[in-house]
Amino acid sequence: MQLYNSLTRKKEEFIPIEKKKVRFYSCGQTVYEDAHIGNARTYSYWDVLVRYLRWRGYDVFWVQNFTDVGHLTDDADTGEDKIIKTAIAKDIQPMVLVEKQIRKFYEDMDKLNIQRADIYPRATGEIPEMIEFVKDLLAKEYAYEVNGTIYFDVTKFSNYGELSPTTYSEETVGARIAVNPEKKDPRDFALWIKAPEGHLMKWPSPWGMGYPGWHLECSVMSQKYLGTTLDIHAGGIDHLHLHHPNEIAQSEARTGQKFVNYWIHAAFLTVNGERMGKSKGNFILVRDLFKEFDPMVIRLFLVNSHYRKSVDFNNDAISQNQVLLDRIRTSLAALKQANGGKEKVLRESITRVTTDFIQAMDDDLNTVGAIQAIMQFVKSVNNAFDNERHLLAEASDLIVTLMGILGIDLHITDVQGVIPLHSLISLIIVLRNDLRNIKQFKLADEIRSKLIDIGIQLEDKPEGTIWKFKS
Amino acid sequence: MQLYNSLTRKKEEFIPIEKKKVRFYSCGQTVYEDAHIGNARTYSYWDVLVRYLRWRGYDVFWVQNFTDVGHLTDDADTGEDKIIKTAIAKDIQPMVLVEKQIRKFYEDMDKLNIQRADIYPRATGEIPEMIEFVKDLLAKEYAYEVNGTIYFDVTKFSNYGELSPTTYSEETVGARIAVNPEKKDPRDFALWIKAPEGHLMKWPSPWGMGYPGWHLECSVMSQKYLGTTLDIHAGGIDHLHLHHPNEIAQSEARTGQKFVNYWIHAAFLTVNGERMGKSKGNFILVRDLFKEFDPMVIRLFLVNSHYRKSVDFNNDAISQNQVLLDRIRTSLAALKQANGGKEKVLRESITRVTTDFIQAMDDDLNTVGAIQAIMQFVKSVNNAFDNERHLLAEASDLIVTLMGILGIDLHITDVQGVIPLHSLISLIIVLRNDLRNIKQFKLADEIRSKLIDIGIQLEDKPEGTIWKFKS
Repeated sequence: MQLYNSLTRKKEEFIPIEKKKVRFYSCGQTVYEDAHIGNARTYSYWDVLVRYLRWRGYDVFWVQNFTDVGHLTDDADTGEDKIIKTAIAKDIQPMVLVEKQIRKFYEDMDKLNIQRADIYPRATGEIPEMIEFVKDLLAKEYAYEVNGTIYFDVTKFSNYGELSPTTYSEETVGARIAVNPEKKDPRDFALWIKAPEGHLMKWPSPWGMGYPGWHLECSVMSQKYLGTTLDIHAGGIDHLHLHHPNEIAQSEARTGQKFVNYWIHAAFLTVNGERMGKSKGNFILVRDLFKEFDPMVIRLFLVNSHYRKSVDFNNDAISQNQVLLDRIRTSLAALKQANGGKEKVLRESITRVTTDFIQAMDDDLNTVGAIQAIMQFVKSVNNAFDNERHLLAEASDLIVTLMGILGIDLHITDVQGVIPLHSLISLIIVLRNDLRNIKQFKLADEIRSKLIDIGIQLEDKPEGTIWKFKS
Repeated sequence: MQLYNSLTRKKEEFIPIEKKKVRFYSCGQTVYEDAHIGNARTYSYWDVLVRYLRWRGYDVFWVQNFTDVGHLTDDADTGEDKIIKTAIAKDIQPMVLVEKQIRKFYEDMDKLNIQRADIYPRATGEIPEMIEFVKDLLAKEYAYEVNGTIYFDVTKFSNYGELSPTTYSEETVGARIAVNPEKKDPRDFALWIKAPEGHLMKWPSPWGMGYPGWHLECSVMSQKYLGTTLDIHAGGIDHLHLHHPNEIAQSEARTGQKFVNYWIHAAFLTVNGERMGKSKGNFILVRDLFKEFDPMVIRLFLVNSHYRKSVDFNNDAISQNQVLLDRIRTSLAALKQANGGKEKVLRESITRVTTDFIQAMDDDLNTVGAIQAIMQFVKSVNNAFDNERHLLAEASDLIVTLMGILGIDLHITDVQGVIPLHSLISLIIVLRNDLRNIKQFKLADEIRSKLIDIGIQLEDKPEGTIWKFKS
């Protein structure tokens, strides 16, 4: 498989450290507010990557963190802690906010069929490890203390900027010097931050009461569970220029070994052509989308563009994906009912879609190509209901499998009891018509009134009988 | 409200430290295996207590922990860590096990409508606070170090045994001396335990690499979020004789203040008259129950006995609660359809059930009395469909509210389609019998085969026709 490695700025063959094992870390949510559609897009791709690698036989161990302390409103080590700020505004303890937001995060991701990582470490759960990390860097003189805050000294680390050579423009350097006179170099960043009087989340350390720097957290949480060198580290493109270079610097300074072999970054999502922003009123939360759209249609939209290209969310885009999903579901329903025949031409289509799917996915996770291959296959299937029954079954399973790798669960509506309910009522409606046909009007009328008792209302319309829940 | 306080061994008027505020901590799950029905019973009662207090206008702040390190297989500070032992047996990292089990715990509790606590601290997330706690006890000479392990010195704490004077019999004292010669007094317990070489979960401390003692964890996790003195501390009766006395000793030794004002303990659950045990083959997991029973029937069973009395789980007990729940649901359905009249006698019943419910619950959470009051009210309602419509609506809302305080959500089945599904199939079974009676055998047979297509199997038994999902 080829992956575009942000570190080398080119597509490279993916070769894990240990054969068929993948150590994968993705930057997770800062749990102070609900997940928005941009978050969901990014996490959807990491889910697809994990599902695909596992399908190809890799043993993937996936860690994704929750940031519940230390992520400041301003990246230049100033500003307020996002969790604390929000908790104070809501007049609750920070950990009550964290608890609620993590629960909502899981609810949203579960609905989008984004599978869970193997471990979700929380920054507050790894404080001792973070302190040890900082002690090591001080001992190796990669860090220095100023008034209880520890900074990483980027000038000591020769490879700083390997991932992102253009991190600091003249302009930002100027701004940062002005902001923080404690730093020797404007690019230096805080590993451990002295807690001001009254600060809500803080821990004892050799340098007094403080809290970890946001960049430090990811290095600790990833390496604790995945080891010194990770195969893949994923994150949003916004982390390419500061968070990830800092992760590399502190990790490699400490261990003297490569931190990550493949860095992958997901692009942004825009809404009706504009970048999302709270002030713009176009900030779309995942949970709000569920009020309007089938979660699986949203999920298909989220992965139906290349992860390194930005995509626009708009009603047309959703409609187009709704059409695709309907086409697939219709085909699956037809496959289920088809009697089959003696043709065998589907064998060839099955081979082709598998090859095309793999070829697309192997090309830097080209999910668009993968979906096109599936749609092409659906077209073939729709002309092949005269094929042998086992081929029809195989085709059906394959569609479900391939869509499943993209995170679109085609089982969902079957298992939830929605279908049985609908089917049962349809069966009763047919029976009622049968009874009328054989002039058993009393029994037929009883059906109607008994359904009302259960809470279901039948309505006879010219085009047939429909049902709805009694309001 | 009166609560039986294990500390004073009598019912006492509950008076919170701060007016109308309740600081509540309940001992939570050690997350190495799935929750069993005994766990579910205990947690159901704490949920009821919180719901009831909130309904009475208290602002309850509820903390329940997850133990993810330090709970040993043997209470005498020996044996293996339950998490690590299980993780090794499953060949996964301990935190992967923890992640999975916490997820399953929430799934089970959610299904039983046991609401979430405000914060679920994890032991591994509070290590720095635990180390500080131990440092304080050493400084105050309530603890001593032996080879990197820190023990609490019970002889220094004059009130040891206040909660449970009979904690140590001659017999257990003898056994404990034999087990651990490091202890000055056999009742001493480990606050911090030296990690042997190769131990999987350990942290640096002033006494070398180690991990926290299980008793210590609860004192830290409760006081961190609730303050020095808690209003109520709840737990299973099995913790009365060791875990809770130890919590009191270390907490009060450190602060010099009372740790908990009200200690409440839930009794055991037996299965078909025997205590549950894995070796006995009668160990019932919550998630297995859902395969057979409506979660709300289980929940009603779980709270339909007094929390301080042990209860037996058996099919009869479930059936009895099924009958009660059916009676309530039928009454609610009838209330919904009733046209009403001009009578007003329900006003009196509404006042009475409210009074009776409160009186029962105020008497040490007498849920049995509360349920009896509700059943009495349901009876009155069933004879009062000629009452004014607004009274019928009020009665309906009140039943839902009061049952809701006991954790039985009467909305659930309406929205989930479970009841409609069951009712629809029952309706179809009746129809099939009607058709046979009028000798329409072909139509009757069609029903059976059409149901099989939907995934539902009918079985004609001597006692009538039953249905099940096709396996």
